[in-house]
Amino acid sequence: MNDAFGPARVLVSEVGPRDGLQSIKTILPLELKKAWITAEAAAGVQEIEVGSFVPAALLPQLADTREVVRHARSIEGLTVAVLVPNLFGAKAAIEAGADKLTLPLSVSETHSLRNLRRTHEQVIADASAIATLIAALPPERRPRFEGSLSTAFGCTIEGPIPDKRLADLAERLIAAGCDEVGLSDTSGYANPSQVRRLVRLVRGVVGDDALTGLHLHNTRGLGLANALAGLEEGITTLDASLGGLGGCPFAPGASGNIVTEDLVFMLDAMGLDTGIDLAALLEVRRMLDRWLPGEAIFGFTSEAGLPLGFQPVGQKA
Amino acid sequence: MNDAFGPARVLVSEVGPRDGLQSIKTILPLELKKAWITAEAAAGVQEIEVGSFVPAALLPQLADTREVVRHARSIEGLTVAVLVPNLFGAKAAIEAGADKLTLPLSVSETHSLRNLRRTHEQVIADASAIATLIAALPPERRPRFEGSLSTAFGCTIEGPIPDKRLADLAERLIAAGCDEVGLSDTSGYANPSQVRRLVRLVRGVVGDDALTGLHLHNTRGLGLANALAGLEEGITTLDASLGGLGGCPFAPGASGNIVTEDLVFMLDAMGLDTGIDLAALLEVRRMLDRWLPGEAIFGFTSEAGLPLGFQPVGQKA
Repeated sequence: MNDAFGPARVLVSEVGPRDGLQSIKTILPLELKKAWITAEAAAGVQEIEVGSFVPAALLPQLADTREVVRHARSIEGLTVAVLVPNLFGAKAAIEAGADKLTLPLSVSETHSLRNLRRTHEQVIADASAIATLIAALPPERRPRFEGSLSTAFGCTIEGPIPDKRLADLAERLIAAGCDEVGLSDTSGYANPSQVRRLVRLVRGVVGDDALTGLHLHNTRGLGLANALAGLEEGITTLDASLGGLGGCPFAPGASGNIVTEDLVFMLDAMGLDTGIDLAALLEVRRMLDRWLPGEAIFGFTSEAGLPLGFQPVGQKA
Repeated sequence: MNDAFGPARVLVSEVGPRDGLQSIKTILPLELKKAWITAEAAAGVQEIEVGSFVPAALLPQLADTREVVRHARSIEGLTVAVLVPNLFGAKAAIEAGADKLTLPLSVSETHSLRNLRRTHEQVIADASAIATLIAALPPERRPRFEGSLSTAFGCTIEGPIPDKRLADLAERLIAAGCDEVGLSDTSGYANPSQVRRLVRLVRGVVGDDALTGLHLHNTRGLGLANALAGLEEGITTLDASLGGLGGCPFAPGASGNIVTEDLVFMLDAMGLDTGIDLAALLEVRRMLDRWLPGEAIFGFTSEAGLPLGFQPVGQKA
């Protein structure tokens, strides 16, 4: 009974310490952030976006990102990813020794102006400057550099996003020196057909190797269906947040990122190797429940438990 | 921008008035059941499982199924489906004039014994007797007869279900005279690869036309991903429950059936025609919220609302 399907191995990139924590009121103390990252890496998660190099005045929840990066770097085998809003943030991230930098570029320029106070031209110029900065480093110190196309599936301010604008911006990010682009469903508007269509569209422009990841939200409940559609198109990296942390502030109960533990259950049940020990991951989720009382935490697998007789991928062979 | 994908038209079969109401404590009064069914049919839902012909002592929530069927039959164009546990229930359902009878057969015999107090042999014998009963009716009065293979994707008592047993029972139900079989993820154990594999397996045995529907649960959050996998295999009927009504009693917060309004949003966004007016459906969902205070109601689209600039299928042409 082999249910294998899609890519043999999927990288689940945990974004809870960044995308999750920036969306809630509670400021998680540095020691608990460290414990979270340590425990999740020990459960087998190989990439964690640990913070964001934004001014502490804007996001006090992430003010200790430098210290968090320092801790995360000490964990062997872990790819330490951070979000950088601009060149200034990228410099700080490189200094701190992050393994991967993600620069968001909102395909909706209205959203870009409100969110980052930057036009498309300014973000592309930053991408170019960051790429130059990275190229000047010794090869072994160069972080991977991703341009993340946010609002790629639609914008809460502009509505639908024209295909051509998405394709053009993807092309320009790669031309500016990004190693890869990612598609981000910031608004939770994506549907599976659209995921397939836009992955094909952007890969047609930048090449398959320059689009391997999706950042999906579960705002309308379609998150895992969209992830499945991405896998079917050959996507191999999926962002997710433990407990779906980062519920959308505009609607209580509307979840944010897709839920790491539900995603890992799906992948594991499908026979796709994530390298993650699901039982251990669910323990980390329970830690989060204790640390964040009063915050909206999502997900079904943590309540329902694993199926009777469930065999993780590693034990099937 | 056409995101069409999978079958052009999907039948969403609402099972809330049966599967939903049987799982909650509240007994919804007959008049509200009628109003629910009327409103959901008016929103464009073409098939509703309105009740179950089981002894009222076992399921007092559904004791008025005869009256509910009578009302539902008065709605033009609506397929009135009911669940029947045995020959006795089937006789009552035929007398009441239901358009479709569903007889559950649990692939896990342990589950069958606990749930229906029937062995496989006994259920197959009932299927045969019901088919004979239907064949004796004048053609215009014959209801459609489905055998629903519950616990098809795994059982909370037995664990994994052998493929061969599922295939054999599907074959025997068709041989006994069922018009079609359906696969039911009673336990919420299914994953997308398994859905694809088992749909292929059973269709290989009974033929494509004799397996068109899936009954999926969202217990571990995979419901819509599993629905997508089914669509990709050519499944054209999906059961769902408004507000995901029928949350699993074993785990508060663990939802039961896939959520009708989230499913319809997914299908509509994908360009698949359901004939359902999503805005009207969301109004029916709000009625349910008012009628069932204190009961667990699920779903994301009702809280998040429709995307800005969202165009339903009907308005795309």
